[in-house]
Amino acid sequence: MSYYIATNVEGPFTEALTRVEAALSQEGFGVLTRIDIEATLKTKIGAAFRPYVILGACNPNLAFDALKLEDKVGTMLPCNIVVQQHQDGRIEVAAVDPVASMQAIDNIALLRAAEQVREKLGRVIASLGSSQASD
Amino acid sequence: MSYYIATNVEGPFTEALTRVEAALSQEGFGVLTRIDIEATLKTKIGAAFRPYVILGACNPNLAFDALKLEDKVGTMLPCNIVVQQHQDGRIEVAAVDPVASMQAIDNIALLRAAEQVREKLGRVIASLGSSQASD
Repeated sequence: MSYYIATNVEGPFTEALTRVEAALSQEGFGVLTRIDIEATLKTKIGAAFRPYVILGACNPNLAFDALKLEDKVGTMLPCNIVVQQHQDGRIEVAAVDPVASMQAIDNIALLRAAEQVREKLGRVIASLGSSQASD
Repeated sequence: MSYYIATNVEGPFTEALTRVEAALSQEGFGVLTRIDIEATLKTKIGAAFRPYVILGACNPNLAFDALKLEDKVGTMLPCNIVVQQHQDGRIEVAAVDPVASMQAIDNIALLRAAEQVREKLGRVIASLGSSQASD
């Protein structure tokens, strides 16, 4: 089982980020957090990295349902979407597969909810690119 | 396998949050994100919830190592710590167990790194409370 759903997208990087946020919005996800890993690593430890942003996306209705089913599910929220530019210039978008990340939680109702979220994230990724990402 | 490491802590809630951030700092974790779930659900869908904050904690050196081992590990970063007040007034702190959440990732070196992070988060939780949390 893969732990993510991914695709390659067209650049430039900042425009790709904007398109990802718009696609998330279409499926009812707001972006609650945005971590610029490249800037963070530079500031905190002086390390050079490549463009890499983690968006924390949340569909409030589905999150509310999940929180009522499992009070510590917040340890795995929001759902992260990574937008990164590889060394070869390729820009890849990868959403966490919530069914995979939550497999350690023994809660069938939550699993059903995670499947719904996975479907939505799958549509987000499918809307962004036509090429299947691979390592 | 549990997916979190938890303990009960003394209140009030906002002081507990401050102590959690200080304990994280002692183990080299900065708090990159802070989501107030109660406020977010109120604003987005008008739903009433209880005090529930998700802190996104990151140890930059360990995160850098993890990113070099697995380019899409950002879908599971930062490590979340939930601070919540239950209906009975009890305040609980729960850190994600990164070994559990990352079990879907087939990467032995990353698993070793996740074990290091789990040890650190375990010390954070142990430093905060003496009572074992339970449902």
